[in-house]
Parts: sequence; C-alpha cells; structure tokens
Amino acid sequence: MEPGPPGSSGPVEPGPCLSGQRGADHAASAFLQSAAGTEPGRHSLAVAAVLPAGCGERMGVPTPKQFCPILERPLISYTLQALERVCWIKDIVVAVTGENMEVMKSIIQKYQHKRISLVEAGVTRHRSIFSGLKALAEDQLNSKLSKPEVVIIHDAVRPFVEEDVLFKVVTAAKEHGCTDYDLEFGTECLQLALKYCRTKAKLVEGSPDLWKVTYKRDLYAAESIIKEIISQEICVVMDSKEDNKHVGHLLEEVLKSELNHVKVTSEALCHAGRHLQQIILDQCYNFVCVNVMTSDFQETQKLLSMLEESNLSILYPVVVVSVHFLDFKLVPPSQKMENLMQIKEFSKKVKERNILLYGLLISYPQDEQKLQESLRQGAIIIASLVKERNSGLIGQLLIA
Amino acid sequence: MEPGPPGSSGPVEPGPCLSGQRGADHAASAFLQSAAGTEPGRHSLAVAAVLPAGCGERMGVPTPKQFCPILERPLISYTLQALERVCWIKDIVVAVTGENMEVMKSIIQKYQHKRISLVEAGVTRHRSIFSGLKALAEDQLNSKLSKPEVVIIHDAVRPFVEEDVLFKVVTAAKEHGCTDYDLEFGTECLQLALKYCRTKAKLVEGSPDLWKVTYKRDLYAAESIIKEIISQEICVVMDSKEDNKHVGHLLEEVLKSELNHVKVTSEALCHAGRHLQQIILDQCYNFVCVNVMTSDFQETQKLLSMLEESNLSILYPVVVVSVHFLDFKLVPPSQKMENLMQIKEFSKKVKERNILLYGLLISYPQDEQKLQESLRQGAIIIASLVKERNSGLIGQLLIA
Repeated sequence: MEPGPPGSSGPVEPGPCLSGQRGADHAASAFLQSAAGTEPGRHSLAVAAVLPAGCGERMGVPTPKQFCPILERPLISYTLQALERVCWIKDIVVAVTGENMEVMKSIIQKYQHKRISLVEAGVTRHRSIFSGLKALAEDQLNSKLSKPEVVIIHDAVRPFVEEDVLFKVVTAAKEHGCTDYDLEFGTECLQLALKYCRTKAKLVEGSPDLWKVTYKRDLYAAESIIKEIISQEICVVMDSKEDNKHVGHLLEEVLKSELNHVKVTSEALCHAGRHLQQIILDQCYNFVCVNVMTSDFQETQKLLSMLEESNLSILYPVVVVSVHFLDFKLVPPSQKMENLMQIKEFSKKVKERNILLYGLLISYPQDEQKLQESLRQGAIIIASLVKERNSGLIGQLLIA
Repeated sequence: MEPGPPGSSGPVEPGPCLSGQRGADHAASAFLQSAAGTEPGRHSLAVAAVLPAGCGERMGVPTPKQFCPILERPLISYTLQALERVCWIKDIVVAVTGENMEVMKSIIQKYQHKRISLVEAGVTRHRSIFSGLKALAEDQLNSKLSKPEVVIIHDAVRPFVEEDVLFKVVTAAKEHGCTDYDLEFGTECLQLALKYCRTKAKLVEGSPDLWKVTYKRDLYAAESIIKEIISQEICVVMDSKEDNKHVGHLLEEVLKSELNHVKVTSEALCHAGRHLQQIILDQCYNFVCVNVMTSDFQETQKLLSMLEESNLSILYPVVVVSVHFLDFKLVPPSQKMENLMQIKEFSKKVKERNILLYGLLISYPQDEQKLQESLRQGAIIIASLVKERNSGLIGQLLIA
C-alpha cells in the first residue's frame, strides 16, 4: 500500500490522535502511518461512514444485537468508538428506527461519541443505507455534514473493525469506484452495485475480526475479546517511600512472570501524578495500589480521585486493587477489620463512576520464600480480578 | 418425525439413560422419546459415529482447536460427551494423528469416555473419515466394533450437537441413502457423495448451535455457553435444625428472585444424603452450604465428601460456597479469622478434585430489613462465583 503520487488525493495522515493507542489499533496505526507518509499539505479525501442500525425483524432471523450490552455498554457504542478512532472519517451517520432514536441520543451523550449524526432507518438495510447517503448528499446550509467523496457502509454489529482494512477499502474505492469488504456474505452490496449501476467494483478481503455479532454466542465472544483487550496492561502504583518501592517492585516482578501476555508497568503516585496521567491517557484500565504497613486508604483514594477526574472509566470499567502489606501479628485484627471495611463504602461510591475497587491483604514481613509465595498468590488473585472484571465482588477484601 | 411402521428399523428408544438430563439435551430427550415411541422388541438401527480430529495444518487456516482447553478440559472431550449421551450411537471412532494418539488416550481415560475407538488420521479430512469407516467396516474377530448401517460423520470441534438433529440425519440417511447436516459449508461431503457414488443424498438443516469452533473467538463463545449451561441450577444445602432451615429458605428465596434464569433448589444434608445424591446425579454443579451461628466447617466438609465420592466434578468444575451466618458482635474476630482461614487449606485440597470452594459471611441476626439487604448482597456474590467459576479466587472469605 504505497501512498499515491504527489498531488493525488488519499486519506490524510491521521496525526496525533492515533498515538499511544493500544490493542486492536496497533497494527492499523503503524500501517497507516507508513502508508500515508508524512507529506505536509496533502489534500485529504473526504470520507464518511453510514451505519445501518435498524431493527429489520424478519421471521427466523435472530434479533439484531446492536443495543445488547457488553460490560453494561451497548454493542453499537463499541462500533462507533472504532470508527471515531479513525481521524480521517469525517462524519458518521447512523440509521436507527424512530423508536430507538432517543436511546441512540442518550448513548451518544453518555459515552461522549463525536461526529455522529442520526437518520431514520428504512424498513430494509438497503433503505437505511439510502437514508444515510441522502443525509450526506444533501447540500443544505444548516447541515453539519459535508458531502464526502467516499462513503464506508459498515454494520453496527461489527465492532472489531480496524483502520487498516478501512484504509484499503477506501483506497480501492477511490481507484475502482466501488468496493465491498464483507468477508462472508457481503457481496450482497457488491452484487447490487454491479447489477444496477454502471460502476466498477472490487472486493477487498477483510480480516476474520470483521465478523458480525448475530447470535448470543457472538455477544459472548465479543465480550471476551473486549475484556481481553482491556486486560493487556496493569499499572502498579506506589508512593515514593523506600519500603513501598521495594515491595511494590517485588510485586511488579511477580506480576510480570505470572502474566505472560500482560504489560506491567509501575508509577509513583507523587510527581504531581504527571506520569500517571500519561498512563491513563494511554488507556490502561487496571491499577494496583501498593500500601505497606498501613490499612488506611489515603494512597488508594488519591489514585481513585485521579481516575475519577480523568474520564477513563466512561467507556470501560476500570479495575483498582488496593493491596495492603500488613504484619498480621502487629495489627490488631479488629482494627484491621474496621479500617478495611471502609472499602465496602468506597467501592459502592466509585462503582457509580464505573470503577471496580477490590482489596487485597498480603502478610508482611515474612521470610523471603513465604513472601514470594504470597506475592505469587496475590498475583493470581489480581489477574483473576482483572480478567473477570466482575462487579458482584467489588468491595471485597481478599487475602493472599 | 413419526416412528416408522411396525417392523421397520429405526433408532431404538434410548431408555433411562436420557432421564434427568439438563441443558442442551432437554429438547432432544423429549423429542426422541416422543418420536421413537415405546414399542418393545423394536429392532435397533446400528449407528456409529466417525470424528475426524486430525491436524490438517494448511497455510492461512487457523490451527484446529480440538485440543484447546475450556475450563481446563479439551474441546474434543465435550464433543465426545455430547455423542456418548446418545445411547443409540453404538461406537464412536476418532481419527487423530499419530503424535496425538497418547494425548487422546489420556483424555479418554481422565474424563472416563466410553465406546471410543481410535484410528490414525489421514493427511486430509476425507482420508481421516475413510480411516474411521474402514475400522467400522472390517469384520474382524478381535474387533470390538460391529458394522453399522448408518455412520454419522461429525467434526470434533462442533461440541453443541443435539440428539434431535442426529436423529433427523440418521432417519433421513436410512430413507434416502446419504445425508449431510452441516449448516454452512457441509455440502462438501454431500457433493462428493453425489459426484462419485451412485447414491441418493439429502440435506438436513441443522441448528445454529452446530457451528464449528474455528477461531479464538469461538473458543471464547464455547466457554461462555458451557459455563452458562452448568450455571443453570444451584442447590442450597442445610442441615435439618430449625434455625438453619429458616435462614436457609430465606436465602433460597432471595436467590430465586435475584437470579431469573437459574433453578434454585434446597436439600437437607441428612436423609443419608439420598436426595442430595439425586441432585448430584441430575447434574447440578453449584452448591451453597448454609451454616448458622457457626464458623466451623463440619457441614460443608460432609457435602464436600459426598461430592468427591460422586465423580460429579470429573467433567466440570463444581462450585461450593460455604455460607456462614454469624453474629459479628458475639464471635471474637480473631477466633473467627482462625477458623475461617481453614477454608484456604480445604480449598487447595478439593481443587485437586476440580471442586472450587469459597466462603461467604453474612451478619446475623439483624433486623429484617438489614438481613434482606445482606441476603441480596450474598445472592449477588454467590451468582458471581457461580458465573465466573474462577479458580483464582478459591479459599477466599467474602463478606455480604
């Protein structure tokens, strides 16, 4: 995929909005940056997207899944997020039935989606697409939408769409006139275009990830994939005191060795939280707050405040594990219990901000071997909490 | 699907082996019992199954998933279980590559599969099928296999096969000579049969559940479906003392109202465990053991012993939640902690038998309203433990 000759149109290099992305966009980001080049002043190709998201209930066909929740957030929101991440898609037009219009508006508001316009769906998918195209085609003074050169038609129930595939499709459309990239039955649109329009058309092969969420099993699969994506990084947060740093780094090492496919980083809570802000911007959804010889929650509360201010948890639930290394012999159990029971109250409060708070006690000091074993048990517990992201267990105090 | 005329061959009524089955077999069981009738002395149709389970690694095609674990058990074992449940399938022949032969034998042994024979796979799926058919066709004195009239060819990676579909296919094969029921691309075999053999053939429509586990997302989906199936029933176990029964039934009621799609039953631990044995036979995989005003584990240990003896946990992990209703003011916290820390040791021990043990404390007595709220919190925690079936959190003491 080379950039076109100088002066030709092609999608503009997306710029800083792709930096620091994680998970599904790694490949797309690298690909696009190499493909699009860095020529300044390049004309941009005007690209928009239309998402048919009507209900189209037909006999014997499963109910469309776009409003089904995954981690308490409707599937369509994930698809919108995937498209919004592509900076060179200027407008996203979603076609929904009249009765779903309000629901859709509240989804856009709650999850802070941008560049979205709504139109009324038709009785069939093709009529919904037509509805969306009309909105983009109209040259109205009060219309926010500008007329694009290429329109991407994308199902609301295909959340795992990546930028590189879209780039291929848009590029091919520019060259050939019309393309389709649906892997399974998507020659539908293509065949119609060939049959009814004097237009050339091309089929671009998509990845298996472009599959359509149709059955309940697909919702399950989508949920597992999304959970896997947001479990790829854990940040161990500690304050700068020597004891904390020592134990914190021990825990970090054990987490790295126990969890093969997870990136484990560590940050200090001080530094005016600057580095931590960056971690949050980089889309890390899992934090372990290390507290040594204290059962109070000051450090954890500082972290929670930063997270609440950051809006990180708008799109995905954020897991925070408050780890307390305690000498079980020194601290009276009843006091310990009282202090730690505060965690139940904190967890209810932060749940309203989509943050899942758990507590973990590790006995300390111990001889080195026992400590290693406790750290290993602690890592297994942390991994379980991150993987399951279960809201039923918030505020629990676990013991390694 | 009516039974054939008197004297004709058809699959024999399966008899008591289908009774009490749960989950995927409900529909099949009812269907078959009505279809097959209850005529004594009916000749049985000899039916066998061949499962191609070779590795067939081709460029660009995902690695076959039959040995991938779901809940720590290889996918192929679930498929074998589904076929074994069909009493009128007399022999199941699995074709595996030479290097997987030992692994396959250990799977058969560990999960106690029956009626399985192994043959060596060919380089292609069709050659593997041929290999299996040859083994069934050969009239050897020392062969355990009897020559069948109908052979079902079934992929090792389609675990959700139900008896009613197999019945349809076998019946159609008997009438038409050859059938295929693969929903997506399965006309492969059918086309070959039509092209190369002078045989009539028929295509039977299968259910969406017959999908093939091909990609990682399919493993995720299969795991979620299997977890859902084994989470459909919870049994609340209590001893016969009045206090226990009262609180136990309160918990049972709250569980029923919190968990819509779950069947909640209760049983007494005494009665020589006879009713409990039946629950275990009926494939209930989740138990809540109620203990009132005691932090010891005697009752829970009785239940665990019964479960260990029963072999219930061979195929699926069994969840046991030991619930303790305690007056937090009366029982000294340190004693409580010591007693309850035994749960960590118990849980490690029973984990070796694929039983996942968790503890749950609920404050009691309390005024009615607070108790209802604690019971509700307890139900949410129990539901989370049953749903996730997470081995990382065993031996933890949770508080409602």
